[in-house]
Amino acid sequence: MRQFVIIGHDAPTTPEFSLDDLAGAAGRLDVLCRCVTSAFFLSHAIREDVRVHAVLRDEYTVSFEGSDLRRLNPDERSTAALIRNALDEREEAIGHIPVETSPGVSLTRRGFDGTLDDVARRGTVVQLHEDGDPVVDVEPPSDPVFVLSDHGDFRESEADLLADHAEQRVSLGPERLHADHAITVAHNYLDTEGFERY
Amino acid sequence: MRQFVIIGHDAPTTPEFSLDDLAGAAGRLDVLCRCVTSAFFLSHAIREDVRVHAVLRDEYTVSFEGSDLRRLNPDERSTAALIRNALDEREEAIGHIPVETSPGVSLTRRGFDGTLDDVARRGTVVQLHEDGDPVVDVEPPSDPVFVLSDHGDFRESEADLLADHAEQRVSLGPERLHADHAITVAHNYLDTEGFERY
Repeated sequence: MRQFVIIGHDAPTTPEFSLDDLAGAAGRLDVLCRCVTSAFFLSHAIREDVRVHAVLRDEYTVSFEGSDLRRLNPDERSTAALIRNALDEREEAIGHIPVETSPGVSLTRRGFDGTLDDVARRGTVVQLHEDGDPVVDVEPPSDPVFVLSDHGDFRESEADLLADHAEQRVSLGPERLHADHAITVAHNYLDTEGFERY
Repeated sequence: MRQFVIIGHDAPTTPEFSLDDLAGAAGRLDVLCRCVTSAFFLSHAIREDVRVHAVLRDEYTVSFEGSDLRRLNPDERSTAALIRNALDEREEAIGHIPVETSPGVSLTRRGFDGTLDDVARRGTVVQLHEDGDPVVDVEPPSDPVFVLSDHGDFRESEADLLADHAEQRVSLGPERLHADHAITVAHNYLDTEGFERY
C-alpha cells in the first residue's frame, strides 16, 4: 500500500466554491486535484493499492481509496467535484468517524495531526527533502507514506510533526518539484525498484 | 533544450469550446494542458530551456517557449485559455509561419508530420516504448525530443513517422503512464543524470 498525504493550506472547507475558479477562489484546489490524479492514474487503469488523504485547512480530510474508487476522472474539475460532494456531507462527519461520500471517497473531521498519526500506524513515513538521501540509494519500505504540501511550504508546526513521524528522509532529485510531480516520481521509483535492472 | 511533442487526436481546432468541459466537449484538452504544466513547472519556477508543441488534430500546432512564457499558470483551465486564445488567431497563421498569440505561445498551421520534421532537425527524437531500453541504461542526448500521445494510442501512421525519426527507444518503467506523468518522469531522469551519484 502506497499512501500520500497532501496538505491544502487554503483549500475550501465548505462546498460553496466554484469549479470554474479552482486556482483562485477555491484556494488552489487545482493542486490537490492533480495530486489525486498523479497518485491513482495509470494509462487505462487505476492504481488500486493506493490511498490519498487531502487535508483541507487542518479541519477536514478527504480520503480516496484506490480499490473502491468508481467515479474518478483525470481532469481537475471532476476531482474537485468529488471533493465538493464530500464537503456537502460535512455535517455527517462526527468525531473521527469517516463518512463515505461517493464510492471510494470519504470525509473525516480531522486535520493533519490526526491524519498523520493514523497513516503512520499503517505505514512508514518517508519525508521528501532536498537534503535527504538520493532516492535510488534507499531501500523503499513496503508501505510508504509520502507527505506533501500544496503550493506553499510546510508550516513550522507541520514540518516538526512530519520530522517526528518520518523514518526516512529522501531526495527525489536536484530540482524542487510541484507536489503532484513529486508523487509521479515517487511512484516511478517504486515501480522500477526491482524491475529487471532498474 | 528539452522538447516535448504531444498529439491531441480529438483536440479543438477552433476557439468555440467551453473551458468548463475540457475533458468532454473540448476533446480531452485537459490532457494537453497537464502535459504543458508537467513540462514547464518547477516549484516556484519555470523551466526555461523547454519547448512544448501541442498538435491539434494534425491541423495546427501550438508551441510554448519556456524562455518567453509570461502568463502560464499550472491549472488546466488557464492553460486551455492560452490555447483558445491561440486558436482565435488561426486566420493569421498562413503557410508554416508561426504567429505569436501571447508571450511565449505561438500557433502554426502544421500537423504532426511537419512539427516532427522541424523538431527532429534541432534535437534527438527519443521514442518512449515499453520494450525500449531502461532509461537509466541510456546516455541521454543533449537535446532530447520526446513524442507523446494524448489519452489514445498513436495511430499507425504516427507510430511509423515516429519510428522513422527516433534515434533512441527507451522505457521509463514497467507501468504505462499518462503522457503528463511520462513527461515528469523524463524530466526527473534528465535532472538526476550526473547529479551526484543518481
